[in-house]
Order: sequence, then C-alpha cells, then structure tokens
Amino acid sequence: MIEFADLRELIAPRSITLIGAGETGLGAWLTRNVLEHSTFAGPIHLVTDRRPEVFGRPTFPSVADIDGEIDVALILLPRGLVPQALRDAQAKGARFAVIMAGGFGEFGDEEGIALDRELREVIAAGSTRVVGPNSPGVGSILAPLGLTIQPGFKDELSPGPIGLIAQSGGVTRAVLQDSHRGVGFSAFFATGNQMDLDVADYLNYFVQDAATKGVALAIESVPSSDRFVEAAERARAAGKPVVMLKTGTSEAGRKAASSHTGAVVGEQGAMRAVAAQHGISVVDDLIHLVNVVHYRLAVTHGNQGWTPRSREVAIVGMSGGSGVLVADALATNGVGLAELDPSTKDRMRLFLPPTLPLSNPLDLADASFRENAFEDSLRLVAQDPGVGALLVIFNAWYENNSMRYAKAAIAVAAEADVPVIPVWMSARGGPELDVLVQAGLLPVRSATEAAATVQSLMADAAGPPTATTSPVNEMISTPRLPDGTILEDRAKQLLDARGVRVSRELVVDTLEAAKAAADAIGYPVILKGLDDSATHRAGTGLVSGAVRTAKQLVDAWNGIADAFRTHTGRDGCPVLVAEFVEGELEAYIGLKRDPEWGMILSLGLGGRWIEEIADAAVLPLPATAEAIENALTASKLARAIERSQLHGAPRAGLLDIAVRIAALGAEHPEISELDVNPVILTRVAAVAVDALITVERCGTDSG
Amino acid sequence: MIEFADLRELIAPRSITLIGAGETGLGAWLTRNVLEHSTFAGPIHLVTDRRPEVFGRPTFPSVADIDGEIDVALILLPRGLVPQALRDAQAKGARFAVIMAGGFGEFGDEEGIALDRELREVIAAGSTRVVGPNSPGVGSILAPLGLTIQPGFKDELSPGPIGLIAQSGGVTRAVLQDSHRGVGFSAFFATGNQMDLDVADYLNYFVQDAATKGVALAIESVPSSDRFVEAAERARAAGKPVVMLKTGTSEAGRKAASSHTGAVVGEQGAMRAVAAQHGISVVDDLIHLVNVVHYRLAVTHGNQGWTPRSREVAIVGMSGGSGVLVADALATNGVGLAELDPSTKDRMRLFLPPTLPLSNPLDLADASFRENAFEDSLRLVAQDPGVGALLVIFNAWYENNSMRYAKAAIAVAAEADVPVIPVWMSARGGPELDVLVQAGLLPVRSATEAAATVQSLMADAAGPPTATTSPVNEMISTPRLPDGTILEDRAKQLLDARGVRVSRELVVDTLEAAKAAADAIGYPVILKGLDDSATHRAGTGLVSGAVRTAKQLVDAWNGIADAFRTHTGRDGCPVLVAEFVEGELEAYIGLKRDPEWGMILSLGLGGRWIEEIADAAVLPLPATAEAIENALTASKLARAIERSQLHGAPRAGLLDIAVRIAALGAEHPEISELDVNPVILTRVAAVAVDALITVERCGTDSG
Repeated sequence: MIEFADLRELIAPRSITLIGAGETGLGAWLTRNVLEHSTFAGPIHLVTDRRPEVFGRPTFPSVADIDGEIDVALILLPRGLVPQALRDAQAKGARFAVIMAGGFGEFGDEEGIALDRELREVIAAGSTRVVGPNSPGVGSILAPLGLTIQPGFKDELSPGPIGLIAQSGGVTRAVLQDSHRGVGFSAFFATGNQMDLDVADYLNYFVQDAATKGVALAIESVPSSDRFVEAAERARAAGKPVVMLKTGTSEAGRKAASSHTGAVVGEQGAMRAVAAQHGISVVDDLIHLVNVVHYRLAVTHGNQGWTPRSREVAIVGMSGGSGVLVADALATNGVGLAELDPSTKDRMRLFLPPTLPLSNPLDLADASFRENAFEDSLRLVAQDPGVGALLVIFNAWYENNSMRYAKAAIAVAAEADVPVIPVWMSARGGPELDVLVQAGLLPVRSATEAAATVQSLMADAAGPPTATTSPVNEMISTPRLPDGTILEDRAKQLLDARGVRVSRELVVDTLEAAKAAADAIGYPVILKGLDDSATHRAGTGLVSGAVRTAKQLVDAWNGIADAFRTHTGRDGCPVLVAEFVEGELEAYIGLKRDPEWGMILSLGLGGRWIEEIADAAVLPLPATAEAIENALTASKLARAIERSQLHGAPRAGLLDIAVRIAALGAEHPEISELDVNPVILTRVAAVAVDALITVERCGTDSG
Repeated sequence: MIEFADLRELIAPRSITLIGAGETGLGAWLTRNVLEHSTFAGPIHLVTDRRPEVFGRPTFPSVADIDGEIDVALILLPRGLVPQALRDAQAKGARFAVIMAGGFGEFGDEEGIALDRELREVIAAGSTRVVGPNSPGVGSILAPLGLTIQPGFKDELSPGPIGLIAQSGGVTRAVLQDSHRGVGFSAFFATGNQMDLDVADYLNYFVQDAATKGVALAIESVPSSDRFVEAAERARAAGKPVVMLKTGTSEAGRKAASSHTGAVVGEQGAMRAVAAQHGISVVDDLIHLVNVVHYRLAVTHGNQGWTPRSREVAIVGMSGGSGVLVADALATNGVGLAELDPSTKDRMRLFLPPTLPLSNPLDLADASFRENAFEDSLRLVAQDPGVGALLVIFNAWYENNSMRYAKAAIAVAAEADVPVIPVWMSARGGPELDVLVQAGLLPVRSATEAAATVQSLMADAAGPPTATTSPVNEMISTPRLPDGTILEDRAKQLLDARGVRVSRELVVDTLEAAKAAADAIGYPVILKGLDDSATHRAGTGLVSGAVRTAKQLVDAWNGIADAFRTHTGRDGCPVLVAEFVEGELEAYIGLKRDPEWGMILSLGLGGRWIEEIADAAVLPLPATAEAIENALTASKLARAIERSQLHGAPRAGLLDIAVRIAALGAEHPEISELDVNPVILTRVAAVAVDALITVERCGTDSG
C-alpha cells in the first residue's frame, strides 16, 4: 500500500520558524515574503545569531531558544550548517522543514557528497518531513503564503486553479510569472533534490486540494515511479489533468544503451509510454506546459473532465497567409484541419460575401470589418461538430476592428465547449492583447507555440484507466536468470520454453547427421559452414541457398565442403542446418529496464537497419495483450504489415511472440535488456530468428 | 541573361497617384499613410469619383483628369474595376502600379478567374510594372513612405538593416510589428499574387540597396526559380544574408507523388536543398525568421559576413533547471553544447567559488549576485574558442541583480564576435527586458524558440558559391525520352547505356539456353520461373537459391521445372536467369522534377522499407560529383555504409551510379520521376537491380 505525506499542514502551518533570517540578500527575500507578503496569523520565529532584530522584530539566537514546539522550519543556511539545523528542528518537534541550500550530491565535490550522506541520515533518524534540499521553497498563491526565497513572489500572486510542481527554483519562478499572461495558480512546490518528500507527495497534495483543478509538473527525476504512478492515477480518478515537462536526463538514464532496442527507444521513450498509460500529457517546453493545463481547465468552464470531441481543429482570422503559416505548423505537429460541416458553411454564407472561400483556415479578409461577422463566424466554427479546437489569428492591428476581434473571441470562448486559442502572432501589445489576457484566453505568441500546444491538448485522451493488472501469462514461469549475457542459442532455447516460435537449427558434422537434422527440422533448410575465419560468409560459398529436398541437401553439403577446402585448405567443418525462414518482413521485439520507469516493451520494424528506421512502439509492463496490440497498431511496422498483406497469421504470430515476451519481462525484473531481432514474418507465421538477453540485477532492486 | 526590374523608383517615386482614395475603411488607411505618415515631397493625386475632397484635399474624378504623366499608381478598387484602372494608369505613362484588391485566381470563382486572365493580358500589353494584385502595399521604413493600407504603419517605423519580402499582407504586418521588440527594417514588399513583379525582383532590390544588410523572406510560392536563384546568388556575393520561411504548398506541389522517392523527399525537400545550395537559411516560423536575420547582422557589428567559428553553443544563467531545459531543446534541434576550454575555466575559477561546477550549461547560482561575476563569466565564455553562440538565461526577476544581468549581456554582446542571445523565459516584462530590447539584443521567449533559432543560425554556413555549372558527364547523351512509364527492363537498358552498373539478366526457354545465359552473365546466378499466376514466388519453389556452378544450374533448372509442373499442371515455362547480387546493403537513388525548383537528385537507404526509413539526401541538379558525395555523407546511408565496412569499392560504385543518374536528370528535363531501388551494395561493387522512370513533359517546359 502506497502512502503519501499529508502536506496540508505544510501549506497551512501552525507556526513558522525561519532559520537564517536576515535583512540582506536571500535572507531578506525570505524574511520579507514571510513577514510582509504572506497572510499568516500564527507565530513566526526568526532565528539568527547575527543580529538581535530583523526588520524590527526580535530574533532568537538559536532554535533551542524558542519556547515550546515549532512546526514548519525554513532552513536558509550554508550547506555545512544544514544537518545540525535539521537536528535542532527535529528536537523541537518540527513536522516539516524546507531546506533551501544547495551544494549537496548535485555539486559532486567531496564535502558536498559527505554532507549529502549526513543529511540523509539525519532525515532518516527523525520524523520531520523534508522539502529539498536545494529548494527555493513552497507556497500558497491563494492564502497567500510565501515560504520561499523568490523576490518576485509578491508580484505574481494570481490565484487560480493550477497547482505547480517544479524541481528547479528558477523554473518555478519562470512558471509563476505566467501570472502576467493571465494564468492563475493555487500553490507551488519547488522539489529540489527530493531527498525525502518527492514529486508524488506533492502531486497527491494537489489531488486532495479542492482549490486545485489541474497540475503542471516540470521535473528532472522521479525517485519512485510506483508512487508517482499511484498519485497520477489518483489525479485521473479525481478528474484533474496532469501535464508534465521532463527535463534533463537522470544519471542512470545517461548510461549508454548497449542494445539496439535501447538505442531505438531512446531516453524519452519509457517516460512517455508510462505517462501515456496513466493519462499524463507530456510537453517539451514550459510555455506549452502552462498552456495545456490552462486550456484544459478553461474549456470545462469550471466543470471536471474534457475530452476533445474531434482531434482536428479550425483556424479563423483575417489574414490568409497567417492562417496558412499556422496550418503548416499544425501539420508538422501532426494536427489535422477539420473539414467544415456543410451546415456551418450554409449558415456562414448568410452573412458573408458569396465569393469568399469558406475553407479552413478561414480567411475572413475585409468581411471581418462588418459588424458581428467575425464573432458570428467564430461561433459557428466553434459549434461545428468536426472541430476540436478553435485557433483565432491575431496577426496585426486593424484599428478599431482589432478590439472587436478580441471581444468576439472572448464571447465565443465563454460559451464554447472547445478550447478557443488566440494566436497573437506579433510583438505588438496593446489593449486588445490585454483584454484577451484578462479574460483568461491565454494568447500564444507564434505558430510553432500554437502547434505544439494544440498537439498536446488534442493528444490528451484522458480516458479511463487502462487495465494493467492482468498480463497474459498462460506459460510456465522460468527460474530467475543468471547475470550476464545470454547469447543466441541459449536465448532462443529460453524463448522456446516460453512458447515463442523460434527458428530451429542443429549443428552437425556428417552428411548423414545433416539429413537427419533436415528431416527433424523440416524442409526447406539452409546450410552454413561454421568457419570462424570467414567474417563475411557472403561470396565464400559457405552458405547454401534454400534446400528443399534431400537431393538438394547432398549437393549443398558437397558445395560447402568444396568451399571450405578452398577457403581453409582443411577437410570438413561443422555445419549448421537451420530452418530456412523465407521472410517478407523483419520485425523486432525488445525489453528494456528503464532505471526510473521499470520494464518496458518495444516493437517495430527490425532487421539490420533497425537504428536507421527507428520505429518503436513502446509500452510499460505489465501490459495486456490488447495494449500490446494497440501499441503495434501505432507503429510503422503495422503499416508495413498491412502493405505486405501479412495481417492474418503472420501478424497474429508476431503478437503472440510479443505477448509472451511481455510476460517474460514482467516476471523477470533481472532482465536489463532483451532483443529479438529479427522476428521474420513469412506468409504464414512469425518466427524469432535471433535473440540476445542481458541480465543485470539492480543494486536497489529487491524484485 | 536574367534581368530584374529596377525598383528604386517604386520606393522613391516622382509622383503618387492614389486611385480609390477615401475617408473611411481601407481608403482612409491608405490615404492617411500617404498623406500623413510618409515624408514625400512630390505630387500626390487623389482619385475618386465619390467625393470632391478627401481629408481636405481636392480629388480627381478619374485618372484621365490628371494633368500630365503619372508615376506610381496605387489601385485600391473592387476587383472588377482593376483591369480598367490599370489601363488608365498605363495610358498616363505610369511606371509602377500597386494593385491592392484580391479576389482573382486565388478565389477560384468564375468571375475571379476571368478577371485574373484579363488583368494578365492588360499587364502584358503595357510597360507599367505591377505589384500584386492582392498586395497590401510596399513601403520604406527609412523614408518613411507608406504605399500601403496597413493601419499600423505609423506605429512600426523602426529603421534598420533588414529588408522584408512577404507574400501575404497579414504576414507583412506581423513581421513589421517586430519593431516592438527592437528589430529595425529598411523597406518592405508585400508581393501578393506576383502576377508581374516577383520575389526575385524584390530580393534584387535589396541586394542593390545600400541601407539593407540582410533580407527576411516569407513566401508561399516562387514563380521562377531561375530568377530567384540568381537574386540569391547576388545577395550572397554582396554578403547579405537571406533567411526564408516558405509557407503553404503550391498547387503543383500538392500533386501526389507517385514514386517512393517522391514520398521520401517530401514537399519541403526540394526547396530546402535549393536554398542550402544558394546560401539561404530556411526557418519554420516568423519569429525564427526575424531572429536569425537580426542575430546574423548584430554579430557582425555592421561589418559584412559572419560564419560561426563553432557549431556548438554555451548557456549561462543563474538557474540550473532553466539551463537544462534550454540544453534539452537544443539537443532536440541537433545543436550541441561546447566543452568549455580549460583556460576559460581557470580564469573563471579566479572569481567564482571553488565548489561551483563549471559545466555547460553554466549555473552561476548565488555567485551571480557578486559584483561583476555575471559579466566576467559571460565575457570569458563568449571568448572561448569552442563557443559559437552564447545563450544567456533570464528565467525570473532577482531584484536589482536582474538589471545587472541585462547590462552584462549588453556589454558582452557589444564586443563579442559570437551572437549573444538573451532567453527571456518568462511572461514578466519590466525595465530589464526593455533595456535588452532597446540595445537590440532581441530576447527570445522560450527554450524551443531559442533552440529553433540557434539551429538555423548555426546551420547557416553562408560559404562561397558552390560550383554548379560543371556536372560530371563523360557519357554519350541519350535521345529525348518518350512520354509515359519506362519499366524495369527498358529502364535498366537505358541506365546500362549511360554506364550504370545494372544487374544482368536474360529470359530463356531451355536448359541449354540457361547454361549459355549463365556463362554470359557469370556465376553466381539465380533462376526464377516466370509464372504470372504466382503472386508471391516465395515458397513455391519457382525461385532458386544462388547457383554457383553449371552442375548446380542443372539441379536448379530441374527443381523449377518440377515446381512449375506441381504448381500449374503444365510443362515448361520461361525462366529468368539473373545475376545473383548478394547484397550487404540496399540503397536507392532517385530523381524528381519539382514544379518550382526543377530536377532534384536524392539518395538514401533503399529497399522495400524506403518509406519507413525515410532517408533522403537531396540536392538540386546540375550538381558536381563533389556535391553528390557531400550529400551522401550527410545521409543515414553513409553511416550504414561505414558500419558495414563498404566504404571502399561499393561506396565508390554507388557514387558513380549517382553521378551518372544526376547527369541523366540534368540532361533530360522530361523525366518527372526516376527510382533506382534497390541499388545493392555487395562487398565489391554497387549494382542497380531495379529501376522505374516516368516521363512527363510540363506544359510550360521548353527544355
């Protein structure tokens, strides 16, 4: 059972103890935020041994000098003093401590690493829950309460429905400044190094917090994916959208992937797959992060839950060229334009000039100067059943018309059940931009920003939780695997034991044995002379063509014997008799244990050019057969199967192998990587022809 | 010899005649711009039959009523009146006309199409050079002179070195509004439908104009690529950077590509290849367009020519998380981070704390609060020889420190020989942002905007013109090809005649003939029974393996005869005896005639999955062997060749085929598409195994 810290009393403390108060620099910023920019009625203790008063209030030379218990401690001290300060806070019964200093493990110097270890020990020894270290703080925008060193706190108090979790202090500040474009926040947590409390605890807080309707996450690492996933599912159950920007790459993630699968899946693949499975939208910039949460909440008009009724969008404006520019950017991001419904066009035609082309993008041109024409057009397009979102282009200033356009967008947004997104494609501000911002329409600045935002918004299905608890597994489970690399022969035996259809092969020394092997394997077969000195067998005569009869087998045997003699001057060689798999298409199936996100399955087009093709459908394990089939459907491989008319038995065979490998991966966390490449699709089946498994236990893995 | 219109007298007219003057709507905007917001000393004639006076100035009821000749005519009339108005202007000796009405061919209605035809005829019959139709106008920011209907003209008069050419009026306005973020312009042309004057004429104007140092292009179509390329080369010779955003797709470009090559190259491939060849940077958003021109000009401090000394960049700021975010975005865009030179680090260590990690991104953290630490760090990083551009992160407001950061960036930018780019990652404005804008540092707003901009900036080599006039062509030229599709056999014969190494094959009916064919072709060969009823020969026994000896040939022949009998119940079939090309790697080489950009060559990884791999090095023809080799080097194919150790004879063979196909393409403009796929690379050679040529004469192609 996963449990989360209850952070309600961190955000609404009984008392605040500020260790490191001051009148200059960071100390002043923190002290001012607590004293002047927060609405807090409880006791505030300022602790510093440097001066008897700070901003006219008496200070305590040490925590021990405070009378009675303390509650939330803010520790703003040089890193070397932090462990003792936390001990002091623990001794006074502090329930929470926010540690602001950085310079621990992340600096990498000897002292920092030693302090990192010491601080972890202090945390483990007490019951005080810790934010940070290396956190600029936490706070409530609604209260307001600024337990933070950020000097701009007072200027960015725009209350609203978005909860913010960011690892970095700088990023926290950058996002909170979106208040200046009309975005409102409930509270924020800068997680810092997540030594104790982590992103999952903060996310769970926002799930419980009634004032928070959606969550923006900008994080570099997820210490526990199990806890994170649990919190994400709670958010989904609560109808609160979660949008995530994952920056940087963890130390473990940077470890070079040794398999092809690893290279194809990439660093972001696992994270994106897990996020998708748990209803989290993933974006690639801060500005998109805020946009997506904001629009999702705006379109519901305060109600919960929104799913785009269409993945296609409409563009309306009064500049054709600007509309085309946005359409291009949408296309680059895979977002399609809706075909306007004939009834929409009929109704628009009643008030628009007969020759004006009613296309999408819709360029109203001079017709937009007519009273109501812009607003009525927007309204009709927003109501069109094929339109999932409406982008309104503001490319330039058109005198008094511009304010009318802005007010039209505001009026339509207030009643629409699709997001209405102003694209303010200009560096020129003014009252028209201001009214859009004030009305909460959150204008985007450029075609690319619009497109990236809309892509995430439309992709966000936020459907019901997918069942992940019943992996298909009718096979006998295999014992735990030994550490190291399991090469082709043994890997295929292992897969064979799990019911995977593998190519059959036997090594023989005599023609008689070869005949028996061919009979056992079944014709056609292929013969390969196993001469280690031939790096490339092609052109040496050491590889036969397809051998379909016993008579051809004799010829092939003799041919290889001749070639071997020519090639090495020696008589006789071991010969591999292998099932001849005449392929139409090569796929791969892979497992990779991601250090943050656990075991993931991937599959796609395979063969020698797997890295160049870079086709990977990715999904976290355990997974149902249905989920695996859905992932396959989204891959280039699926299109290739369709094109090659292999959608019958070969596709079913491929899925069967994938499901069995998924079960293997789910049962064997000791597998770090597994490559089955190629899986050859013939006209009648799918056959795993080569395999490689790497087993490596994690230091911290108890599974 | 390509000639361009001399547009100097359009931008500095002798007199201006405004046909369609008025006091309301568009008429008022245009009249005000000419009368009130321009500095023009010459005669201005206002023509309208609606009122005797406009803004207190007497009007002429018709152009004919004007005394003497007119010079530049601005025609702001409903589309139906435009052809006659142009005739009137021609009759009065007008040298230029700017036609503002739209609704011609681009509307697609019957009247619009008829008017389009009529207007073209009027233009052709006279000597008046025409801007538009569907152009909101042209103007000089330096004069200023606003021959334009844009109402914001008066507010965006920020003189500077950038010339602007945009097809769309809305886009023109959006870009000119970048004056509000410190961008300065010399003049602008909104091309409209380019019925007469086109983008090449306008580009040539800016090449000649001393005040213009660089050009921003936002266009939908290029009527004549020859003229455009000539103007681009003149700009390169003049040391004036040209940056282009190409929006939309032309009618012709939308024509579905019928070949694999066409699908792989895509709509943008040809344009990007031509642009790269002629030193034009291509970007994908308006905001990047302006950024790239501006930074290129800013870094030269008024001098001509700049080439990045390194393609790698540095990031400095005081938020680690924000720096990582920008680094992520750069990585996504293929821009690498420079490793700071040890001497740079040594010098920074003199004034930075000993434990602060000196990495890139460089997070100065609290050390940035020290006097001069930020500026000195920026300066040292900007001077580092491995750093090609410096991004300075402004993520949030840090009280009085922020203004110090801004001034530091300005001071360093003033002396640096790399672009210094502030990343103002926040919606919060203020005096710090204002001083950056005023100093011309042009802050970017987000990590993704920074990354896209820097990618274009770094990619822009702007080196010397590439020789394109000496295609390798020692072969006998072939006669013009007949219209239609040339299938495998004939296509390969044609390539063979041009010296391309193609796979040899013969069709035979008897075993004796097969033996003779194999002798002629050379062993190994492969035999295929040509049975049309077998859609898939695999598994039918109708295809042999590699046949290496005459003895194996007999076996193979008999095997196929047996299989044919089993399969069809008939005796004997025609058998194809083909060279057995035992491949290590499959490539493709293609030609595609782009309707705008002419014949282009592409090559990449080939085979059946060419579309999934989507590897295409593209370059316009004619091209030198060296250019073809450079294109190959940039492809995934080149990496695959390296990995497969085929860099010797097979790679040389592939290049030889590519050079011969390039020569074929350059000589035969009647080829619309050519696919050679696969070209099989063996250990010793490259062999074209299949080919398809489509010949289709363009209606307007005289070549």
